[in-house]
This record gives sequence, C-alpha cells and structure tokens, in this order.
Amino acid sequence: MNIDMIEAAAGRLAGHALRTPLLESPFLNRIAGRRVLIKPECLQRTGSFKFRGGWSAVSALDPETRARGIIAFSSGNHAQGVAMAAQAHGAPAVIVMPADAPAIKIENTRALGAEVLTYDRATEDRDAIGARIAQQRGLTLIRPFDDPQVIAGQGTTGIEIAEQAAEAGVDQADVLVCCGGGGLTSGIALALEARAPGLRARPVEPEGFDDVARSLAAGRIIRNDRTSGSLCDAIITPQPGELTFPIMARLCGPGIAVGEAEALHAMALAFSRLKLVAEPGGAVALAAALFRPDAVAGDAVIVLISGGNVEASVFMRALAEHATNEEEQTR
Amino acid sequence: MNIDMIEAAAGRLAGHALRTPLLESPFLNRIAGRRVLIKPECLQRTGSFKFRGGWSAVSALDPETRARGIIAFSSGNHAQGVAMAAQAHGAPAVIVMPADAPAIKIENTRALGAEVLTYDRATEDRDAIGARIAQQRGLTLIRPFDDPQVIAGQGTTGIEIAEQAAEAGVDQADVLVCCGGGGLTSGIALALEARAPGLRARPVEPEGFDDVARSLAAGRIIRNDRTSGSLCDAIITPQPGELTFPIMARLCGPGIAVGEAEALHAMALAFSRLKLVAEPGGAVALAAALFRPDAVAGDAVIVLISGGNVEASVFMRALAEHATNEEEQTR
Repeated sequence: MNIDMIEAAAGRLAGHALRTPLLESPFLNRIAGRRVLIKPECLQRTGSFKFRGGWSAVSALDPETRARGIIAFSSGNHAQGVAMAAQAHGAPAVIVMPADAPAIKIENTRALGAEVLTYDRATEDRDAIGARIAQQRGLTLIRPFDDPQVIAGQGTTGIEIAEQAAEAGVDQADVLVCCGGGGLTSGIALALEARAPGLRARPVEPEGFDDVARSLAAGRIIRNDRTSGSLCDAIITPQPGELTFPIMARLCGPGIAVGEAEALHAMALAFSRLKLVAEPGGAVALAAALFRPDAVAGDAVIVLISGGNVEASVFMRALAEHATNEEEQTR
Repeated sequence: MNIDMIEAAAGRLAGHALRTPLLESPFLNRIAGRRVLIKPECLQRTGSFKFRGGWSAVSALDPETRARGIIAFSSGNHAQGVAMAAQAHGAPAVIVMPADAPAIKIENTRALGAEVLTYDRATEDRDAIGARIAQQRGLTLIRPFDDPQVIAGQGTTGIEIAEQAAEAGVDQADVLVCCGGGGLTSGIALALEARAPGLRARPVEPEGFDDVARSLAAGRIIRNDRTSGSLCDAIITPQPGELTFPIMARLCGPGIAVGEAEALHAMALAFSRLKLVAEPGGAVALAAALFRPDAVAGDAVIVLISGGNVEASVFMRALAEHATNEEEQTR
C-alpha cells in the first residue's frame, strides 16, 4: 500500500466519484472552540464514502475477471457502493445480506442492479454460502476494508482533504475519521503522509465498540466484546483489519470514543448548521470535534461525515431530542 | 446587467462562497423519468444562495461607503447572507426584522455580528424606520433582489451550473429555479445566456403565490393576492422585481407552480436520496422536476435547491408524512 495506488485509484474515480466540498460553519466553530472543517462523504454517490472503495476495486479488476462478476457481504453502505460500481461497469454483482436486514436496504441494493442473496443469521454460515456461490460462478470477492484497492479508493478522500485544507489555510490539524474496520482511516492516513504531513488521521468510534482505539493503545489487535446493539451500526466491526491496522498503528494518532447521545446531537447540529443528513455512525467524528475539544489540539480540526444512510425514524429521534432543544435555548 | 458583472462578482466571491457540487441520484432519475442534476445551494454559507448576493453587493461598495455600514430588511435568508458578508468585510450591519420573527433567526443574525432592529408589524412602518436609521448613520441599503450587484452575485450560481452541466454531458436542459423576487432566477438566466445557451432558466413557485409565472404569461408584472400563509415563506414576495422581471421575460421559459405537499415530499426525497436538508421554499424546483415531469422536456433537467434553513418541526413533518411512507412502500 502506498500513495501511488491511491493516486491511481483517484485517476479511475475521476468523473465518477463526487469531489465532496469542505464545509465550515461559524456556529460549529464556536461550539468546538476552533475551526471545524467538514468533509461530507454523506453526499458521495450511494450516500457514503464506500462508493470510492467499491469503484476502485471493481475498476481495478481485469476486464475478463470483472465480466464474471463480483460478490460482497454487506447489509449496508459497502453493498450499495459495490452494487453501483459494478452496475456502471456492466459487471454482475451478488450481495449477500442477512434476511432480517431492513427492507429498504435490500430494495436499494436491488435497485442498483445487484442480485441480493439473503441468509438466516441464526442457522446459516454467511462465509460458506458466499464461498460456494463465488466458486460456482467465478465471482471475485470485494471485502469491505481489508483489500488494498478498497483502501486505495477510500484514500482518495485524503488526497482531496490535503488539497482542500491547504486552500482553507490549514496545514497542521488532526483529521477525525469515523472508523469501523479502518479502510477509510488507513487510506486517508496514507494519503496525508504523502500529501499533507502536517495533518494526522485519528479514528473515532462509538463507546463500547472502540476496538481500534484500544488496539492502537495496546499495539496489537483487540476485538470488540460485542458487535451489535449500537445505533452506529455502519461503523461496527469485530476488530481492525489485518491490512488496515499496521497502517493505522504507524500513522494515526490516538483514537477517540463518543457516546450514542453525542452522535445524535452531532446529527442534529449537522442538520441545523450544515444542512446535511448524517447517519449515527457517520456523525461520531463531528461529535468528537464538538464535544471532546480537549481530545484534540490546534486551531483547526478536520472531520469526516462518512455516510448519511439513516432511517427517517432515527433521524427524527435525533432532531426531537436535540435540534428542538437547541432552538429553544436560543429563545 | 450583463455577464461581465456576473464574472466580476464571481471573482470577488472566489475563496469566500462555496462552489456547490452538482449531485445526481439514480433513484430520483427514476421518479422523474430523466436525469435530474441538483445544485444544492442549501450547502452555501449561511444555508442559502443569498450569501452570494450579499457578498457581491457588500464587496462591490467602495471602502469608505462600506465602512459606514449597510442595512437590510429581512427576517430570513437575505438577513443572514448580508450579515455574514458584512462581518467578513468588517462593516457594521443593521438588519431590520419584524419583532415576531422566529427567535432562532434573530439569534442567528446577531451571532453573525449584525445589529438586529425589530419593529411591530401591526403598528410600525418598516420602510420608514429603515430610511430614518439609514440616513442617520449613513448606511447603504442592500435590497434582497432588485439590486444589480445582488443579481450578479446570484448569477455566479449560473456560471457554475454552465460548467458543471457540461462536465456532466448536459448541454440542453431546463434549469428549474426556486423563485421569489427573481434575483436568483434572473441572475442564472443571464449567466446561462452567455455561457450555456442550450440551458434555459424557469421559475418555480408555490401554488397560490405564482406571481412570476403569471407575470411571465401576461407579459406584465402581476402581484400575488396574498403574501403570507405558506410554508414556502422563504420565496414569497409580493411581485417580481422591476429589474428582475424584464430579464426573466426576455430569457426564461414558462413558470411552474407546485403544491405545499409536493414541496414537503421533495424535502423527504432530498433527505433519503441526497442526504440534504432543504427548506420548503428551497424544495419547490425539485418537486417540479419529480412530480411535474410533463412540464419539462428533454433527457435531463437541472434543479436548484435554494436553501435549507428550516425549523426541525417542519422538517420532521415532511419526514413523518412522506419519508416513512416511502420506506414502507418498499417493504
């Protein structure tokens, strides 16, 4: 893994992925006590940064392999990113999802041209099902984070951050990244090492699911005790990746963990101050910037909003609990 | 008014206004039956395109005049756009607002450094108050739309649309613009005339407040019967401007009017498919693209989302009435 792979991925993504802007609000700056520059990957195609990695991986395959098709395991953002990338390349895509995944996610993935195979989480082995189908049909598996081309694709976000931060006059800052398996965090860290060495990536996770923070502190991979039961489901993984962890250990600053209520509050502030829809897992880095100001140093902090694929009911809960309160406080 | 003024405004705005991206969703394309390219000015600084006109006008003043200060009448987006522009130029700003304006809007405008003067709508004459203060302090009035530099500032959106549509492979399309007094619509129309003659601006208004559509059809300025009682308050004005109407009459296609429920539905789709917060008035052009497909022709349509300054309660109503239904329909 190196910057050349990320630059090559950026070349393949040009004209396909959105170059998301870098946003700023004086109201958020005031809360944080410093400039907060926000990179809204919720605006990315399919509603999350995952499109970058999906496109990078699909476009990197040789045409013959790609034509046989790809397969991915995901009930969420990775599924949609891979499905749209495959569809645009004319490649068949099989997405393996739990049968109890939200119907809207299954429907969205199908609408992007993918064949969705469901399995029973209680009685069936996802990996075995996937391996059998992949072998039968000659499909190529695209992993959600532990894949060099996926990491390279997510790293293109870091190239853009390096350029946009320089335009905003910021060359020394922490870059807070919503972190699951570490594909986005490690990709951004590699891009910043080469393009903006004064910027440092730092993973942000939900409290109780901070495997990356604890692994970085311990210097070895530590698993989460559990992997369900969080509103921040988009960024919950069992443990850091075998490819991503060494990169993060070499390049990232310490991890930060925030509470679920803080993530919901950050969603409400992204609504009122940025006009953005963030999902709970996509809002943890913004929450860290706003509510854990002592965890970072310097005059500016850069924040990823990694995705916006949230059900209306969860979003309304965030607004009901936080946005209306905030409006009332100013009365 | 000509393209040179818009280009000059673009030069003054460079590095200050956000160059908003052009977004697209396959799900919205399917609803509309054609490509829908969305220009999200809700992401603009202060949450609406009004920042462009405010900055253009404030930056165009000679330094001595500017240093005496500016004044504007507005309870909404124009107030915030002008206030932020004045603050950044170190110029005092007085914003005259009705005393019963939402407290959050008064507070936001004050937080941007402006002095807010309130008046009683029932008993006091806004224009008389403003004129007296302007004369006493030597302030310059910045009108919300009938001002050449304001129109030029809004027109910078059109320059960006011309460039971004070409990048997206679109050179023939209607550009649907949320329209109040016509500052944004006329500015975009002028920019497109010079930079993308295959693109044609068309105003979109709320039903019952379609003064611009009726004025265009009649070939003369016609007033609205009423100017209150709409959720789309951000784009309700008594009549088209004296500067903006002749430009629209020369360059724009016919107006379109949509219902309030359609605007709320478009807000819910902007939430689920674009991850954007649109205000009701800012969503009428998207509503026209999605729900009035017969009103436009061609393979693509371009849509402005003009602002996102909406109270949480109104946004939650849009989601409750439309987003959850939509999710259920896919089950």
